[in-house]
Amino acid sequence: MTPTSNNGKTGISIPAATMERLPRYLMQLFRLRRKNCDSVNSQSLGEALGLKDTQIRKDLSYFGVFGKARYGYNVEYLIKAIESILGLTSEYNLAIIGVGNLGKALANYAVQVNSNFVLKLLVDTNPEIIGTTVADLPVRSMDDLPQLLSTQEIHIGIIAVPEKAAVDVANILVEGGVRALYNFSQAELHHIEGVFIENASISYGVYKLAHHLSGSWPRKK
Amino acid sequence: MTPTSNNGKTGISIPAATMERLPRYLMQLFRLRRKNCDSVNSQSLGEALGLKDTQIRKDLSYFGVFGKARYGYNVEYLIKAIESILGLTSEYNLAIIGVGNLGKALANYAVQVNSNFVLKLLVDTNPEIIGTTVADLPVRSMDDLPQLLSTQEIHIGIIAVPEKAAVDVANILVEGGVRALYNFSQAELHHIEGVFIENASISYGVYKLAHHLSGSWPRKK
Repeated sequence: MTPTSNNGKTGISIPAATMERLPRYLMQLFRLRRKNCDSVNSQSLGEALGLKDTQIRKDLSYFGVFGKARYGYNVEYLIKAIESILGLTSEYNLAIIGVGNLGKALANYAVQVNSNFVLKLLVDTNPEIIGTTVADLPVRSMDDLPQLLSTQEIHIGIIAVPEKAAVDVANILVEGGVRALYNFSQAELHHIEGVFIENASISYGVYKLAHHLSGSWPRKK
Repeated sequence: MTPTSNNGKTGISIPAATMERLPRYLMQLFRLRRKNCDSVNSQSLGEALGLKDTQIRKDLSYFGVFGKARYGYNVEYLIKAIESILGLTSEYNLAIIGVGNLGKALANYAVQVNSNFVLKLLVDTNPEIIGTTVADLPVRSMDDLPQLLSTQEIHIGIIAVPEKAAVDVANILVEGGVRALYNFSQAELHHIEGVFIENASISYGVYKLAHHLSGSWPRKK
């Protein structure tokens, strides 16, 4: 990721660290909306997210959102502003490749996250999984993937296959016109010209926690 | 995370960005070890990880590892050095709370990642899941969790339950002596005194990709 992110429409430059926090803000704002909460101040937003209120005010000021002293931020307005910065004013079609336990979990996640993401395609190689229904979609055969990609536009390909299959799957997706890959396999997928790759790195969290534990709480083997 | 991480034993300060990359280095080094590769230079390590070789040399120099001009880095030595920095010289016992699709996927991941992480406990509330075997472990009842934590030491609690149950599960784990939580629920778990929390934030990746796509490839709704 580049040090700053540039919103094409407005030309605003936002630091990468702020960009990383915006999805968390958005998910907290969705929670507030579900509770019919109209406004929120930086203190309570900070408490919910484990951030300082000064950090939140600074982050939001980058795209010209300033709270009112007594009322804080309007929840709907803030949702719209962050969605706009994050590019969530368009719809994105998702495909999940690999419908094992992880793929199934991701499929159920995907349909909950945000209405801007539309799960369109589930694909697997296992004959026992092909033809079953997951998250209201039929699982299609991996053999049909190139043809399926030629008839529907997929924006984000989510890779949930074993490590050894990941590179082949990535290549098929890219050949089929997919320009963003979210890689949940343990394989390292690196630079492909014109393609955005996000590595989910599920196992890195345990390494980070182990490091924290070892520093604060020395243990013998 | 603090801006720099301090290894208790040696007093080395390592930038947070370097710390974030070390698990990726380690996983690539494990791949090389599996291929019986004895040494690797910064160029090929960089290619595999999508990083510049100068970045890799700089990262490794923080903890006093320097490659040799013609031979590069010794794979075993580098693994040992990174494991030491990451605190992977101890063993960590893991518990996974919630054995739905995500919990099952994480259980199978956990047993593959690294021998320093030992999956000890699987817990669920669903009577149809309790008693089944996942990753060679029997799934225990959530009701028994406090008692189970009193009889075995768990270092890292992995939370894979629905959003509404996550805070209660976190509290039970912390009361049972668990000092590190890896949260895969959609709930925000924030500061608990003396406890390290890592939020897995599976859905943030799609937000980041959407942002990239919207910047480079404007679309109509």
